[in-house]
Amino acid sequence: MSSAKTVQALTPAAVQAAYDLIQPYVHRTPLLTCQTLDAIASTPQSTEALVDTPFEGQTPARPNFRFYFKCENLQRIGAFKARGAFHALLRLVEERGEEEVKRRGVITHSSGNHAQALALAASTLNIPAYIVMPRISTPSKIAGTKSHGAEVIFSGSTSVEREAVVAELQAKTGALLVPPYDYFDVICGQGTTALELEAQYAERGSGILDAVITPVGGGGLNAGVATYFSDKPQTLVFGAEPSFEGADDCRRGLQAGQRVEKVSTLTIADGLRTPVGVLNWEVISDKRKVEGVFAVTEEQIKAAMRLVLERMKVVVEPSAVVGLAACLFNEDLRRRVEQEGGEKGWDVAIVFSGGNTTVEAISKLFG
Amino acid sequence: MSSAKTVQALTPAAVQAAYDLIQPYVHRTPLLTCQTLDAIASTPQSTEALVDTPFEGQTPARPNFRFYFKCENLQRIGAFKARGAFHALLRLVEERGEEEVKRRGVITHSSGNHAQALALAASTLNIPAYIVMPRISTPSKIAGTKSHGAEVIFSGSTSVEREAVVAELQAKTGALLVPPYDYFDVICGQGTTALELEAQYAERGSGILDAVITPVGGGGLNAGVATYFSDKPQTLVFGAEPSFEGADDCRRGLQAGQRVEKVSTLTIADGLRTPVGVLNWEVISDKRKVEGVFAVTEEQIKAAMRLVLERMKVVVEPSAVVGLAACLFNEDLRRRVEQEGGEKGWDVAIVFSGGNTTVEAISKLFG
Repeated sequence: MSSAKTVQALTPAAVQAAYDLIQPYVHRTPLLTCQTLDAIASTPQSTEALVDTPFEGQTPARPNFRFYFKCENLQRIGAFKARGAFHALLRLVEERGEEEVKRRGVITHSSGNHAQALALAASTLNIPAYIVMPRISTPSKIAGTKSHGAEVIFSGSTSVEREAVVAELQAKTGALLVPPYDYFDVICGQGTTALELEAQYAERGSGILDAVITPVGGGGLNAGVATYFSDKPQTLVFGAEPSFEGADDCRRGLQAGQRVEKVSTLTIADGLRTPVGVLNWEVISDKRKVEGVFAVTEEQIKAAMRLVLERMKVVVEPSAVVGLAACLFNEDLRRRVEQEGGEKGWDVAIVFSGGNTTVEAISKLFG
Repeated sequence: MSSAKTVQALTPAAVQAAYDLIQPYVHRTPLLTCQTLDAIASTPQSTEALVDTPFEGQTPARPNFRFYFKCENLQRIGAFKARGAFHALLRLVEERGEEEVKRRGVITHSSGNHAQALALAASTLNIPAYIVMPRISTPSKIAGTKSHGAEVIFSGSTSVEREAVVAELQAKTGALLVPPYDYFDVICGQGTTALELEAQYAERGSGILDAVITPVGGGGLNAGVATYFSDKPQTLVFGAEPSFEGADDCRRGLQAGQRVEKVSTLTIADGLRTPVGVLNWEVISDKRKVEGVFAVTEEQIKAAMRLVLERMKVVVEPSAVVGLAACLFNEDLRRRVEQEGGEKGWDVAIVFSGGNTTVEAISKLFG
C-alpha cells in the first residue's frame, strides 16, 4: 500500500484513468453556450459600477467573452461531487478488494453535496455508507442523504465533535474514511470534469480554449481541473471564491505564500466555506498549474445567479456562479481578456459546480 | 387574398410548411428526460392527498410515466411564441411582399411573451413593430420588448382601451395586426413544436409516443400541436389549464359544448389567463384532435414548478408546468395511464411553454 501511495502523482494520465473507471456511473453533463450572457459580459462596466471597488477610478475594460458552461448542476445528485465519490470507492475496491470494502463500509462527515454523492456511490456499488451529519442540518439534506440508502449518524456541529463521532464509528465498524476534497482519488475524479469539457469543446471545432474557471472551496474541483490541463499550457486555469468574511482563503494564501488553514464564514456560497486542503493547495499554489484565483462579493454572486436563472433558465446554487461573477465584475480579469484576447476575445469554460438549492433558498436570497 | 384564405386548412402539411419557413430563425430546443420526475409521477398519490379533491375516496392510481420535456423555455425570447411570431411575419412577407410589410409595419397588443416574440421577429426581419402595452405592465417586460427594437405604445389596461389604441395606430400607420393566438399562421407556427419533438423522440428509437400535453391559454400552442398530430392517432393530444377563478374556460367549454368567451382570472399561470380563441376552439373541441383538457389548482402548479426547478434544475414559468401538474395530480389521467399503459406505461411528451420568470417572482410564489 504505502509504496503504491508514494507513486501516486497528480497527472493528466491519472485523471484519464479516473474517467475510464467512473464513466459508466456519471452523466456526461452538457456544455452550454448563451449568447445573452456573452453579450452582457462583453459590455464594459459603467464607471459608477466601479465606485467602492478595488477598481474605482479605472477605465472599465472592454473584454470579449465567449462562454462555455459545463453544467455539473445537471450531474447526478446535482453536483460534480458524484465524480470524486464514485472514483474514490471504485479505487478502494481495486486496492483492497470488494470483500474488504463491503465488509468495512465507508464513512465521511459532511452536510453537503459530498454526503449525497458518497451515499449514491456507495449504494450503487453495494457498499455500506456511514454519513456523520451535524444534528442541525436542514431536514431536506438529511432526507436526501438517507434517500440514497446511507446510514446517517448525527453529531454536534464543530469539527471536533464531528471527528469524534467519525473516530468512534470507525473503531466500531472499521469503515474507511473518504474525505470530501483533500484526497488523491477524489481530486482525480473531480478532474474528469475538465477532460469531458475539453472533449465537448473540441467537438464544436471552435479553436483554442483560452481559460477554464472553477469555484474553489476545499479545492478538489480546481486542483483536479488544473491537473488535467497541466500539460496544455494554452489553456489557463483560474479559481474563484467568495470574499465574504474571509472565505477567499485561497486568494489570501497565494498572496501570503502560505496556505490559510482556518476559515469561518457564512457566505451564501455555502459549498465554498471550507479552507483549501493540503494536497489541493500543492496544485493550486503551483503557478504552472493555476494562473490565479479571484474573489467576488455576495452581491456579485447574487447578480450572476440571477442572470443564470433568468437568462439561461438554468438552476444553479450560489457556489456555482463565482467564476461567472469574476468574469462579469473583476476588472483585472476583464482587462487581461481585453489585452490578450483583443477583438477575437477569449473562449472561457465556466464550471457550474452544482444546482442544489430550493425555491425557499432562492426566496431568501432575492425576496 | 380571400381565395387564398378560404383554402387555408389546419393540416400537418401546413405545420411542415411553417417549419420550413421558420427553421433558420428559431432554436431546436432540447427534449429532456428526468428519471427523478418519472419516479415521482409513477408513485401512487397517498389516499390523504386526495381528500378535498374530486378524487376523494378513490384508490390512488398506479400509472407508469416516462416523460419527454420539450423545453420551449429555452426557445428564443424564452417561450414557444417565437415560432408563431416568425411564421406570421414570414407569411405576411410572402403574401404581401417585403416592400408593403416593411412600409406598413406590424402591430399587436400584449404584455407578455407574444410582445417580445413579435418584437424579436420584426427586428430580425427589419420590419417596424408597434406593441401596445398596458401602462401598468412590469418595467422588465417593457424593457424586454423595447430591447428587441420595437416601439412600445402605452394604453389603459382593459381590452377596450387597448384595442382603441391599436385601431388609432393602425389608422395612422397602416400596420398589419398579428394577433397572439387566434390566427392561422400563428397556430401553424406553434405547431412546429410538435413536429420537432416527434422527430427528437424518434431519434431515440424509443417506440411510440403515447401522449403529448400542452398548456392551454389562447390555445395557439395546443391547437398547433393537435393539428400536427391529427393524422397520427396513436399519439393522443391533451391540454391543461389552471382552474383558479374560472381560468379553465376550455375544459368548461368542452363540458358545455360551447366556447367560453370571457375569463377574468389572476391565476399565477399568467400566460393562461385568456379565453381560447375562435379558430383554436375549432381544433381543440374536435375530439379527433384533442382527447381532453385537464384543470389544475394553484397549489398543484406550484408543486410541479418546485419539482422542475429543484430536481430538473430548469427554470420554468408557472404556465409551463400545468401539463406536468395534471400528470402528477389528476387521477382521471393517472388511472387512464395505469389502465391503458399497464406495466409498460406511457411515453408522454410535456411541452414546457416558457421560462420567463424572475427571482423576485419566484420569491413571491414560494417565499
